[in-house]
Amino acid sequence: MPEISKRGNLMPNSPIRKLVPLAEEAQQKGNVVYRLNIGQPDIPTSPLAIEAIRNINVKVIEYGHSAGNESLRRKFVEYYKRINVNVNYEDILITTGASEAITLTLLTCLNAGDEIIVPEPFYANYFSFATATDVEVVPITSRMENGFALPPIEEFEKKITPRTKAIIICNPNNPTGYIYSRKELEQLRDLVVKHDLFLLSDEVYRELCYDGYKFTSIMELDGIDEHVILIDSVSKRYSATGLRTGVIVSKNRKLLEIALRFCQARLCPPYVAQVAAEAAIDSPQEYMDMMYNEFLKRRNFLVNELNSMPGVYCPMPKGAFYVLVRLPVDDAEKFAMWMLKEFNYNKQTVMLAPASGFYFNTDFGKREVRVAYVLNVEELKKALECLRKGLEAYPGRLSKDEIREELKELPVLK
Amino acid sequence: MPEISKRGNLMPNSPIRKLVPLAEEAQQKGNVVYRLNIGQPDIPTSPLAIEAIRNINVKVIEYGHSAGNESLRRKFVEYYKRINVNVNYEDILITTGASEAITLTLLTCLNAGDEIIVPEPFYANYFSFATATDVEVVPITSRMENGFALPPIEEFEKKITPRTKAIIICNPNNPTGYIYSRKELEQLRDLVVKHDLFLLSDEVYRELCYDGYKFTSIMELDGIDEHVILIDSVSKRYSATGLRTGVIVSKNRKLLEIALRFCQARLCPPYVAQVAAEAAIDSPQEYMDMMYNEFLKRRNFLVNELNSMPGVYCPMPKGAFYVLVRLPVDDAEKFAMWMLKEFNYNKQTVMLAPASGFYFNTDFGKREVRVAYVLNVEELKKALECLRKGLEAYPGRLSKDEIREELKELPVLK
Repeated sequence: MPEISKRGNLMPNSPIRKLVPLAEEAQQKGNVVYRLNIGQPDIPTSPLAIEAIRNINVKVIEYGHSAGNESLRRKFVEYYKRINVNVNYEDILITTGASEAITLTLLTCLNAGDEIIVPEPFYANYFSFATATDVEVVPITSRMENGFALPPIEEFEKKITPRTKAIIICNPNNPTGYIYSRKELEQLRDLVVKHDLFLLSDEVYRELCYDGYKFTSIMELDGIDEHVILIDSVSKRYSATGLRTGVIVSKNRKLLEIALRFCQARLCPPYVAQVAAEAAIDSPQEYMDMMYNEFLKRRNFLVNELNSMPGVYCPMPKGAFYVLVRLPVDDAEKFAMWMLKEFNYNKQTVMLAPASGFYFNTDFGKREVRVAYVLNVEELKKALECLRKGLEAYPGRLSKDEIREELKELPVLK
Repeated sequence: MPEISKRGNLMPNSPIRKLVPLAEEAQQKGNVVYRLNIGQPDIPTSPLAIEAIRNINVKVIEYGHSAGNESLRRKFVEYYKRINVNVNYEDILITTGASEAITLTLLTCLNAGDEIIVPEPFYANYFSFATATDVEVVPITSRMENGFALPPIEEFEKKITPRTKAIIICNPNNPTGYIYSRKELEQLRDLVVKHDLFLLSDEVYRELCYDGYKFTSIMELDGIDEHVILIDSVSKRYSATGLRTGVIVSKNRKLLEIALRFCQARLCPPYVAQVAAEAAIDSPQEYMDMMYNEFLKRRNFLVNELNSMPGVYCPMPKGAFYVLVRLPVDDAEKFAMWMLKEFNYNKQTVMLAPASGFYFNTDFGKREVRVAYVLNVEELKKALECLRKGLEAYPGRLSKDEIREELKELPVLK
């Protein structure tokens, strides 16, 4: 048979989804599987979005504009105005989710073989998008010790080569929950101006900032209009991940003009999803507050419970709906697989995302998992009870001495 | 500012969509623009699809499986069984339109720099997908003289190099309307086996074969299961182009396994579109017959009218809903632009797709346009009256002698 491509063979299995077959097997054996691996909240989709879908009343579901429906682009302008970001509808391209937004931006800005710098741990699919577009990921490691703050800007400087074309950040961060300060963003601004780089900022969790941490959008910074590309999506904001509606936003007209050619090749974004997204952006404040308060409650409960388990270490995240957790196990991926294949507690088990897939250097995340607090507190409670029992029973559990060694460089959590 | 990528600069403007701004200007001046440039029929979307959308009744629009909803994959199996193609649901990946299906297949099968052979004229976006994936298009020209039949297989042989990894055909063909015979497909089969190549067959117009021409799916051929990838979509079949639901079908499990990794990176296809597509596949025969008869009537009217215009040459297409037409003009793209910018007949004009964008060697299509018969006969009549008047008034019209020269190698149409 003809050979599969090299880039196909290089494509990673998603750390978030690769254990799905094991979860399905566990369910077939009659177990309940609490899925904390994936950013799929149980929060109801904004009712305005559902209503808009049910009210679709067209005779022909036609191709739309390749840039997306103008009415949706204008609705996004209204939304951004509310968060102090001033853009025109012509600065916006609608995409099939933030996934397509990032892929098309990489194609537009980077040649095959060019490099993109990414603070790690990073959203695992950044590596997939880069692989699919023949772009090299250059990681800079952020540390659990300081809550995964932006690494010193000198570390970025050291990694810049003639092939470096862009930096991508996720803010608030998936998987760490870190929120970049204005000062950190200004450092990045100075850096991309100095080295003439693009700066991609993925801000899909913008509304989820806790404990008074203030969010700054990359679009609020002056003097880098030609450098900045905002990546956004309605998936998390209105709990509508299955819609697949995202955007590329940039003041760089040349960039958008070229990105539009890639958009033309795939004709248009899905129509019904765009209608739903447009309605969702008008969701009332009560809906947004409900979601915010729900995630806040879950975070507090989850982090507290996790840190009460012997040998587990979980810093309090500032935003989004994920935590990165250090577990007292030999290998977090082995443990996650074992939980699905070998373990159950009263016919229940938990699905976790091994963190190694969120690091370029997979050794770094070896004892970490990402937990998404996408279930309500009652379900979370049951899930965490399983996790606690699983950690107790797991044959590869670290000894007390090993745990002490593992945690010795990490600050004591308050 | 940082530089746009080379591949971005290489991305072609869509010949189908690049005149859209001129059409918008013409409309702003108060003209009616008959859009015959794009495969966007006015046929009502299958009512079952619309109904399914209006009946959506979920609390959360969630991520689905990266391979697509299992129920939709199984529904496609039923559909294929009806057309004598036996596949399992595991042979099917749901994609965001045939566009994504082709892009992901190219990424899975070809490395950057590899070559794909394409009979030209070809669907213009094949070139865009190849450019976006750094794949080289190697064209083999089919000829208006013989209705755009498959070029002799020896011409394919001559073009095969160590870099050749695949051949792509569109059957029935967009833009030529040609339907490949079983004998031609068998020649391609022998070729891909001999040279160990992949064979992509884009069959989205499968139901539209006229005058008793029999359609053969590439999936009906034996002995090339590991080589063949079927590309399909519900867009044209159920007049639902804005849904964006396509498929990759292949018996090559390794290929699908790797393609699935690309699917995982973009998480899942749009949910609502999948629900609509699943319903549409059950569209009653009356709906399919209505569509078929409508396109047949339009084709006959259109081709007859076109050939009645002095100097216009239009062979009768066998399938799909396009014709390639030779026009008595100096340059078909200039003419198409002139029709929008300078011309109107009783405040009406026509938008055409210059054919040069459907050829790799753009000189070939210089005096041709693609016309999509996507309007009803009454509208077509008005559109063609505009075209006739436009051709009469166009300053770059060929002289009688030039027309004779232009058409001398083409057979007389019956």
